[in-house]
Amino acid sequence: MSEQVFIPRLAIIGVGLIGGSLALALKERGVVGEVVGCGRGRPNLEKALEMGIVDRYSRDPVAAVKDADVVFLATPVKSFAAVTRQLLPGLKPGAVLTDGGSVKAAVVAEVEPLLPDQIQFVPGHPIAGTEKSGAEAAFPTLYQGKRCILTPTARTAEGALDLVRRMWQAVGSDVVTMSLEKHDRVLAAISHLPHMVAYSLVNAVGSYDHYEENILEYSAGGFRDFTRIASSDPTMWRDIAETNRDALLEMMAQFEIFFAELKADIEAGNGDRMFEFFLKSKQLRDAIL
Amino acid sequence: MSEQVFIPRLAIIGVGLIGGSLALALKERGVVGEVVGCGRGRPNLEKALEMGIVDRYSRDPVAAVKDADVVFLATPVKSFAAVTRQLLPGLKPGAVLTDGGSVKAAVVAEVEPLLPDQIQFVPGHPIAGTEKSGAEAAFPTLYQGKRCILTPTARTAEGALDLVRRMWQAVGSDVVTMSLEKHDRVLAAISHLPHMVAYSLVNAVGSYDHYEENILEYSAGGFRDFTRIASSDPTMWRDIAETNRDALLEMMAQFEIFFAELKADIEAGNGDRMFEFFLKSKQLRDAIL
Repeated sequence: MSEQVFIPRLAIIGVGLIGGSLALALKERGVVGEVVGCGRGRPNLEKALEMGIVDRYSRDPVAAVKDADVVFLATPVKSFAAVTRQLLPGLKPGAVLTDGGSVKAAVVAEVEPLLPDQIQFVPGHPIAGTEKSGAEAAFPTLYQGKRCILTPTARTAEGALDLVRRMWQAVGSDVVTMSLEKHDRVLAAISHLPHMVAYSLVNAVGSYDHYEENILEYSAGGFRDFTRIASSDPTMWRDIAETNRDALLEMMAQFEIFFAELKADIEAGNGDRMFEFFLKSKQLRDAIL
Repeated sequence: MSEQVFIPRLAIIGVGLIGGSLALALKERGVVGEVVGCGRGRPNLEKALEMGIVDRYSRDPVAAVKDADVVFLATPVKSFAAVTRQLLPGLKPGAVLTDGGSVKAAVVAEVEPLLPDQIQFVPGHPIAGTEKSGAEAAFPTLYQGKRCILTPTARTAEGALDLVRRMWQAVGSDVVTMSLEKHDRVLAAISHLPHMVAYSLVNAVGSYDHYEENILEYSAGGFRDFTRIASSDPTMWRDIAETNRDALLEMMAQFEIFFAELKADIEAGNGDRMFEFFLKSKQLRDAIL
C-alpha cells in the first residue's frame, strides 16, 4: 500500500477540468507513463496537447484506449453507457475502467452489465471542481486535500480497487470507500439538495411580483453569496436530478419537513422553538467549519 | 440637497457594529460635532471611547440624549419601545429619532405612538453588517456603497427625512425610501427567507440518521459556503422571525410552492421542466452578479 503506484498507459475519455486535472497531477508526480486523450472536440484536444495534459490524442475511442492499463471516464454521466459501448472493443484484458461521475448507482447499473469478466470496473467520484470547464480549466492541484469516494461493486477485484485508490492518493486525495447507495444519499444531502434549494430560492424571490420592480435588485452581498450555486450549469443539474432521483427526492422530502416545522413555529409565534431550531443549526454548522 | 449636512450633537444608543460604524464614518467626514454614546455595558463603552467612536458616554439614556439633534437607535429591535420610553424625557423639542432596525412595520407600530408631536421619527435600515458585533467590530467604511432604506411614515416631516437621508449619503450609502410594508417584504425575500432556508437545510442534513456517522462530515466547500448564514445569532433571528412574521410567512409559502414544483418535476422525470427551472434561476442569478 505504501509503495508508489505506476500506470504505464492512461486513457482519459473527456479531457476537461476533471480528467485534465487528474492527468496533470499524475504526470507531475511521475505516476503515469503515457497519457492518451479522447474527446469529440479537436480544439479542446489540441489545447490539452499544448498544455501537456496528454501526450497524444485520438478522437476514436477504440484507438484511444488501446493497451491502456487504466481508462478514466470523465464525460457527462448520462453518456457513460454509450461511451463504454464505443470503447469496449479496444480494451485489453485486465484493463481497469474507472470514472469521476457525480452519481453512482444509476451509472453502474448501466455500465457494469456491458463489461466482460476480464475488464475491471472501479466506480469513483472525486469531490472537487470549479465553475469552469474544458481542458483550459485543468490544473494539477485540483484534488489536493479533497475527498474522493470509491464505490466498489460485488464484481470489483481488490487489486483493481487498490490501484485506483493509490492513483487518487498519489494526487493528494483523501480516499474513502462506501456503497453506491450511500454515496448517492450523501451527495444528495450535501450537494444535490443544496442546489435544488438555491435554484428554488432564486426563482421564488425573482418571481415575486407584488411590486413593479424585481426585488432581486435590492439583494445585498449575503443573498448573492448564498445563491452562487444557482448559477451552475442547468444541463448538468438536470442530468444529476434525473440519475439520482430517488436519493434526491428522499432528501428534498426531509428538507420540506424541517422547513414546514419552522414555518409552523413562526406562524404559532413559538419563540422558544424557533430559538432551539436556529441554535441547533448553528451548532451543527459551526462543528464543520 | 447638495450642501453637506451637519449634526452638532449625535447620540448613539447601542454602540456596536452598526451604531459605532455610523459614528466613526460621520466623524471621519466632519459631519458631526459631538457624539455621545449610551449602552448597558461599561467595558464596551470604554472601548468605544478609546477607539474615538464617541466623545463621551452615559449609561443613563436621559443624560445621553440631552440636547442631541439626532438620536440613533441601534439596540436589538425588540428593545426599541422600552428604550424609547426610557430616553423620551431627555429629548429636546425638534430632535430627530432614527434607527437601524432590520424590521420596520412592527417597530414603528410600537415606537411611534410613544412620541410627542415635537419629536420627529425617521425609521431606517442600512443594509450592511458583518458576522461580528460590539464596538470593537466597528469600522468607518461599513456603509460605503451599501444600500440604506428609509421608511418615512405619515407623520414624518420632509425636513427630518432629508436630514437623515443626507446623513446616510454622507457616509457613502445609496439611500432609497419605501413604505414600511414594502421594506419588510423586500427584506423577508432577500434576507430573512434565505436565513430560514439555510437553517432548515443544515438541520435537515444534520439530522439525517440513515447512517451511523453524521453525513455533514462529508460536506465539501460548496456546502460550507452555502450554509455560512446558518451560523448567525439565534436570538437575533428569533426576534426577526417574530417581528416580521407576516411578510416572512408569505415568502416562506412562496418558496414552498417553487420547491414543491421542482420536486414534482423530478418525481415525474420531467427533464425539460427541470432544465427550464434551473435555466430561469441561473438567468435571474447571473443578472444580479
